[in-house]
Amino acid sequence: MIPQLQVIGITGIPEIKPGDHLGDVIVKAAQEQGTPLETGDILVVTQKIVSKAEGRVVDLRDIEPSPFAKYVAEESDRDPSHVEVILRESRRIVRMARGTLITETKHGLVCAAAGVDASNVPGENNVSLLPEDPDRSARGILKDISMLTGVDLAVIISDSFGRPWREGSVDIAIGAAGLDAVKDYRGTDDANGRALKVSVIAIADELASTAELVTGKIASIPVAIIRGYQYTAGDEGTKPLIRESAKDMFS
Amino acid sequence: MIPQLQVIGITGIPEIKPGDHLGDVIVKAAQEQGTPLETGDILVVTQKIVSKAEGRVVDLRDIEPSPFAKYVAEESDRDPSHVEVILRESRRIVRMARGTLITETKHGLVCAAAGVDASNVPGENNVSLLPEDPDRSARGILKDISMLTGVDLAVIISDSFGRPWREGSVDIAIGAAGLDAVKDYRGTDDANGRALKVSVIAIADELASTAELVTGKIASIPVAIIRGYQYTAGDEGTKPLIRESAKDMFS
Repeated sequence: MIPQLQVIGITGIPEIKPGDHLGDVIVKAAQEQGTPLETGDILVVTQKIVSKAEGRVVDLRDIEPSPFAKYVAEESDRDPSHVEVILRESRRIVRMARGTLITETKHGLVCAAAGVDASNVPGENNVSLLPEDPDRSARGILKDISMLTGVDLAVIISDSFGRPWREGSVDIAIGAAGLDAVKDYRGTDDANGRALKVSVIAIADELASTAELVTGKIASIPVAIIRGYQYTAGDEGTKPLIRESAKDMFS
Repeated sequence: MIPQLQVIGITGIPEIKPGDHLGDVIVKAAQEQGTPLETGDILVVTQKIVSKAEGRVVDLRDIEPSPFAKYVAEESDRDPSHVEVILRESRRIVRMARGTLITETKHGLVCAAAGVDASNVPGENNVSLLPEDPDRSARGILKDISMLTGVDLAVIISDSFGRPWREGSVDIAIGAAGLDAVKDYRGTDDANGRALKVSVIAIADELASTAELVTGKIASIPVAIIRGYQYTAGDEGTKPLIRESAKDMFS
């Protein structure tokens, strides 16, 4: 059997407003473009529209920066209120240098500026925050789509993250529902009876990166369908992808 | 227009031996399964078969470990000759702890064990090394395929890498030919006229991760075709993906 996947961008999704039901919007848009959702699909939803639907947008004029935020802002040539929002989204600062703040968010994600982002957010002083609980967001979208259509699928919430040592960002999974986020080969031998070097694959991250190839950054294609990938059903969300900082060599 | 991709695994590729011409093997296998290569395809070739074709396999019994390799091996409960090979493939040790050696290879890749790997290599004492110059390997495969078929495509050499802060590995591009490895949005504004947070996307890494979804670790599917992605032709290989260690916050 030839393993094959299809990756389909969903076009025609309007600007999302607080309170919008993403499940409805996605089901409708997929239908309208002639690619209705099917059982076994993986739906990859980019973070920005999830944050917008959940009202995770703040007006920087409403934020009172702390003395530390003011100091950091001056050192890094940023807006003090923007730095304040980053600090409020963080539980730990991992690196601070060269105008970049790498922090661990309250979800355990390590990234630049705690995922706080001004791009593609309407309103001159607005920035978007990551969803409060992206696994819960994914479960919500999954549930809405199941109720509307009866199809049984999986949902990933994706965002673009930089990496140490490599230029350029790639999309990874910050939230997931309905599938095992990792594929675990531990205890499996190769064709020669030797243990595999790489034993756990971050499938959900690879799926998020795959979707980025059709969603891109500018076109209004914030959602993609991945069809044909045989995932394992699971309900742990993205927990299996988060490494405890105590176990990390770069914390 | 609905953006769509297809990802097709290439089955029927035999065990690769030193001196095999991967271009020939891949063209033949793709044809035999009824999915011949087409202009605009991206071919993702996993590292192991490239290393095998190039004879980048060493017998650990032929390796004389240095005193340092012996010391490290004892500390980390490894084979001293295996450690010696890792050190010879490295130009810098990035982290050494908990039995793990993270090094910078001579290509500028930062990874565990310098990419030296015993899995899926026939011969009890054999380990595979990364190709000497994976961009050159990619160019060679690309050239062979062009000559054989006349189709104009791009080639990526992929390998599975772990990441800081996240569990599980993902496939990234260690070599490339025929395409721009990154998509650069610098200077581009979003729909609201604000600069984009993420401005450079590591397309080649995302393509490598996409291919992993069909190649997997156990089945003998070491190559995948990605069809429908509009890449930009380019000849810099993976150079745009390598961040200088002086510019990195985790070096």
